[in-house]
Amino acid sequence: MTEPLAPGSTIGILGGGQLGRMLAMAAARLGYRCHIYEPGAAPAADVAAGWTQAPYDDVEALTSFARACDLVTFEFENIPAAALERLTSLVPLFPDRRALEVSQDRLTEKRFLRDIGLATAPFGAVDGPESLGHALSETGMPAILKTRRFGYDGKGQARIADMNEAKTALATFGGAPAIAEGVVPFSIEISVIAARGRDGSVSAYDPGENVHEDGILSTTTVPARIPPGLKTDAVLIASRILNALDYVGVLGVELFVTADGLVVNEIAPRVHNSGHWTQAGCAVDQFEQHIRAIAGWPLGDGSRHADVRMENLIGDDVHRAVALAAEPGVQVHLYGKGEVRAGRKMGHVNRVMR
Amino acid sequence: MTEPLAPGSTIGILGGGQLGRMLAMAAARLGYRCHIYEPGAAPAADVAAGWTQAPYDDVEALTSFARACDLVTFEFENIPAAALERLTSLVPLFPDRRALEVSQDRLTEKRFLRDIGLATAPFGAVDGPESLGHALSETGMPAILKTRRFGYDGKGQARIADMNEAKTALATFGGAPAIAEGVVPFSIEISVIAARGRDGSVSAYDPGENVHEDGILSTTTVPARIPPGLKTDAVLIASRILNALDYVGVLGVELFVTADGLVVNEIAPRVHNSGHWTQAGCAVDQFEQHIRAIAGWPLGDGSRHADVRMENLIGDDVHRAVALAAEPGVQVHLYGKGEVRAGRKMGHVNRVMR
Repeated sequence: MTEPLAPGSTIGILGGGQLGRMLAMAAARLGYRCHIYEPGAAPAADVAAGWTQAPYDDVEALTSFARACDLVTFEFENIPAAALERLTSLVPLFPDRRALEVSQDRLTEKRFLRDIGLATAPFGAVDGPESLGHALSETGMPAILKTRRFGYDGKGQARIADMNEAKTALATFGGAPAIAEGVVPFSIEISVIAARGRDGSVSAYDPGENVHEDGILSTTTVPARIPPGLKTDAVLIASRILNALDYVGVLGVELFVTADGLVVNEIAPRVHNSGHWTQAGCAVDQFEQHIRAIAGWPLGDGSRHADVRMENLIGDDVHRAVALAAEPGVQVHLYGKGEVRAGRKMGHVNRVMR
Repeated sequence: MTEPLAPGSTIGILGGGQLGRMLAMAAARLGYRCHIYEPGAAPAADVAAGWTQAPYDDVEALTSFARACDLVTFEFENIPAAALERLTSLVPLFPDRRALEVSQDRLTEKRFLRDIGLATAPFGAVDGPESLGHALSETGMPAILKTRRFGYDGKGQARIADMNEAKTALATFGGAPAIAEGVVPFSIEISVIAARGRDGSVSAYDPGENVHEDGILSTTTVPARIPPGLKTDAVLIASRILNALDYVGVLGVELFVTADGLVVNEIAPRVHNSGHWTQAGCAVDQFEQHIRAIAGWPLGDGSRHADVRMENLIGDDVHRAVALAAEPGVQVHLYGKGEVRAGRKMGHVNRVMR
């Protein structure tokens, strides 16, 4: 194992939202300074030592950002390729470009998962209306049509029941390359948050059980209601992905629980909303685990000392924060975002259940 | 109960050390921005939205600091009176000046504690060599001679066995007003961290058992090895102090466990080193509890969900941080201080004990 990043070093974080904010605080707990790169509003900058506010195509800003940092990580996967190229020529990036390339494109991701022997929904590439027929023969109907890139929280997705709906949905994507995915019959969705260190060690948290509303994560509950065998499977799946990517950092894996076992829904090469419960349930939370991994520290103990239910505060939910704070075992996390908007993640609460 | 401080408001923190740093992160978790006031180096500024670097007698800097903040709190009690006067004329201060006046002066503090019916070490005022005789007749020998103001971590203190030693020690104080305190025979030292909200509600954490080395806190372990009755007494003592001061915020109370019950050693009108274990053992830690109290939120659940041992990393201890991080259940907190010096608090670890 190489020496960890020296105390007082600066970690750059691409993206200034809530994940960057919580990463920055975790880095501070380990004695590091953080520098945020974010073109828009940056709640993360309020808890960071520095902030570069510039677009991702500003080569000069990217260069001086990279020079101010000892290593760089990110809070979201849709970083433009040119920016990545510039950055990686100047400063170490963890996780690396390979992880981003796989997860930035739903088709590449599905093929990667299939190639390493994991179960996914049936899928087919949709490069244009002419490929819909073949893709939908792979998936069957109904299916979900998704843009290959830049989708999150249910955006760039449409459920389709026939070819006409498929053509209409595809037209709304404005010519963006797409993928058709079959609908997987599942009982519950779970996710595993796992980390891999610079020395190749792997540590996984207990799987959480997720409930979505309107395509946005609503709650994660640990322990998930799954048999021990599936819990082991989930951790093994996450480990296989981490090792196949020679990954460094925290990764989120969303899984469907089906009659035939676990099916991988998607992976996120970063800390993940469904891992926020670790702040209340573990000695080392997912944010610190990510910083430990990328900074070359030993991975933290991922074992869980409490049952926890994480609830997102979305839009107006944030006005419930003070009332929730009065309840036993409730830990509040607000993100410092200025404007309350419908569908916007404003904060979350972790409820420790005895 | 009044409305809590509005989201996005700015909390000013006097002092930029590790306590200010951890307070700033707790405030961020509740959606607030922080502004640090610190004349010297300020590790807290690395996780705060703003920093005024100016001496405490800079009226202009104090004024613009106060105007940038919606309320002000502090991480240490030795704030000069003139600075306090200026600030409190411009912005709400929690805890208020009364709490500071009591705890800034060891003699005032002892008299306050005695007046509200609490047991303290015997004591006597030492205004000069001529009052040593009377003071030491109150305390008996051996005794401890302390400056009345500006002492911390064992500084400005001397243990004395006779009148000659007393005169010598007093001379080293350079004429500063002093106090003689009797030596209390005790089995262990415990401390209680308690909070009082703006609505008068009180919440206390479980007492921790403290071990000092060279006058500096070394470890705090919860639960403390005391019978349930003493635990109740400790919480009642803290509550009495909080209520007598009409206090708002977190307060630390150090107590000696003696054959005759609990004796109050000293109080600190702020978050306290011996409360760091709450970061690993409670859903709401002492830093968030303080922010909740001063910002008008309901106080958090102080109940403890794990046994914890907090160990300070002092001076070169900090080099053990990475090795400690590899142990199960260990949570590392480093303070981002540049220079490692003997006796300097560089960080701490919380060890969750199953």
